[in-house]
Amino acid sequence: MADNNVSEIMIRVNYSETDRMGVAYHGRYPVWFDMARTEHLRRTGVAYRELEDGGLLLTVSELQVRYRRGAEYDDLVRVRCWVREVATRRVTFGYVVEHAGRGDILATGMTSLIAVNRDFGVVHLPADLKDALCAIPDPVRI
Amino acid sequence: MADNNVSEIMIRVNYSETDRMGVAYHGRYPVWFDMARTEHLRRTGVAYRELEDGGLLLTVSELQVRYRRGAEYDDLVRVRCWVREVATRRVTFGYVVEHAGRGDILATGMTSLIAVNRDFGVVHLPADLKDALCAIPDPVRI
Amino acid sequence: MADNNVSEIMIRVNYSETDRMGVAYHGRYPVWFDMARTEHLRRTGVAYRELEDGGLLLTVSELQVRYRRGAEYDDLVRVRCWVREVATRRVTFGYVVEHAGRGDILATGMTSLIAVNRDFGVVHLPADLKDALCAIPDPVRI
Amino acid sequence: MADNNVSEIMIRVNYSETDRMGVAYHGRYPVWFDMARTEHLRRTGVAYRELEDGGLLLTVSELQVRYRRGAEYDDLVRVRCWVREVATRRVTFGYVVEHAGRGDILATGMTSLIAVNRDFGVVHLPADLKDALCAIPDPVRI
Repeated sequence: MADNNVSEIMIRVNYSETDRMGVAYHGRYPVWFDMARTEHLRRTGVAYRELEDGGLLLTVSELQVRYRRGAEYDDLVRVRCWVREVATRRVTFGYVVEHAGRGDILATGMTSLIAVNRDFGVVHLPADLKDALCAIPDPVRI
Repeated sequence: MADNNVSEIMIRVNYSETDRMGVAYHGRYPVWFDMARTEHLRRTGVAYRELEDGGLLLTVSELQVRYRRGAEYDDLVRVRCWVREVATRRVTFGYVVEHAGRGDILATGMTSLIAVNRDFGVVHLPADLKDALCAIPDPVRI
Repeated sequence: MADNNVSEIMIRVNYSETDRMGVAYHGRYPVWFDMARTEHLRRTGVAYRELEDGGLLLTVSELQVRYRRGAEYDDLVRVRCWVREVATRRVTFGYVVEHAGRGDILATGMTSLIAVNRDFGVVHLPADLKDALCAIPDPVRI
Repeated sequence: MADNNVSEIMIRVNYSETDRMGVAYHGRYPVWFDMARTEHLRRTGVAYRELEDGGLLLTVSELQVRYRRGAEYDDLVRVRCWVREVATRRVTFGYVVEHAGRGDILATGMTSLIAVNRDFGVVHLPADLKDALCAIPDPVRI
């Protein structure tokens, strides 16, 4: 996973994210993916906020998560993110969530995002954005 | 609490709202207040969504919550809401969260909201909104 | 969708659920699924809380959501839920989110849950739970 | 604010935290306080997770937030945290949320936490915990 096209963020599991089982609620993973995706875009030179301010929105059209093991309260987790595929109007990201201390995989996932304008009409991804997004083979099986 | 100016909503504590202690996370109560406030406004003839679409936003300027007892997973809770005070540019709501089955108070709270325009500039509350909002003495001590 | 084995809940999109696009954040749908699943279980005679108190936990192992159209602030949405498949240690639920007023589909999804004990060791689904869970063909394509 | 007894964390406002107004939803601030409090405790040598594992829980009994200005999407905010007061069974924390770039104050707040055992019975704060928690005068007006 030493690929230059895989970025990573670290997240400390907060009390607000835990549930009655004592682990991070499964619905938090899509948020972690979102945080990782934003930083991945930033690292490739794309400030998503500026895209939106310019009228281009990326709206999530598909989400998949496979959970292998829970992230406990106060655990430090690493979320790696990469671009899986870039199409005319859609970009797909892959994610893996790992326990930072032990290194084992807690979950994997993907999201597809569609380019839309402010009225939610589907549009083409701008050429410069497509160029910035470098799709790679999945470094781990999702 | 049979006052006509006190509205109520019922909320079933969902798994996503619980934390490691097995009760609803304390940070969920401001959301419950928001849900109760929206319905209270609706009951008094004010669709908040239409206010916003018309350019008037009510932004929270102050929040207070006193927690007495936890709401457990799958408990049904009742959130009562009323208007405490209406000023030129601000309206203050009161809340009490009760266990629906037992009837005891789990928490009380208040939020103050300021009227602003789309640029977050403070404005006067419209006269018809002020008329619709009927302030009453607190039915329970907050 | 008049099938007796499809249950439904109604959700009013709250301000807390909206995002900068003005629609319900995509990460809220897994929570809505959870709420719908809990009520579906209750309707089939299974109080999930009692299962957990008895030592049986159902932990989400897979989640998929396909988003077709956004749910706007204050929209009333209907979430339908059913059992897709029951296996020895796993149960899979299907979901469809519809705009209550217009009736069109906003999203579809599924979650698989694995039966585990308090130490997160995988166990068999109890026979009476398996009997209560009545799998049906998907009423809509997921 | 260069006091050694004031800790700080940095938070990048994620899309999931924004609302229809385009700023961080007011209900996220209690979560940010929680994150800041956890790190403040850690910095003073207290791993809250270990406290809980040892049977001592700190449950929030009071929350106050004053909001001055919104935190926009993708803004970097700094949350400072300190101990305001330590009593026999209760500890009170203060917080200030600042825009990291501009440095202006976005919100201030406080939470009181009560020491309880696993049955939510109120207990005394352990002597070593009280010693670790160093109360200071508020560095900013709350």
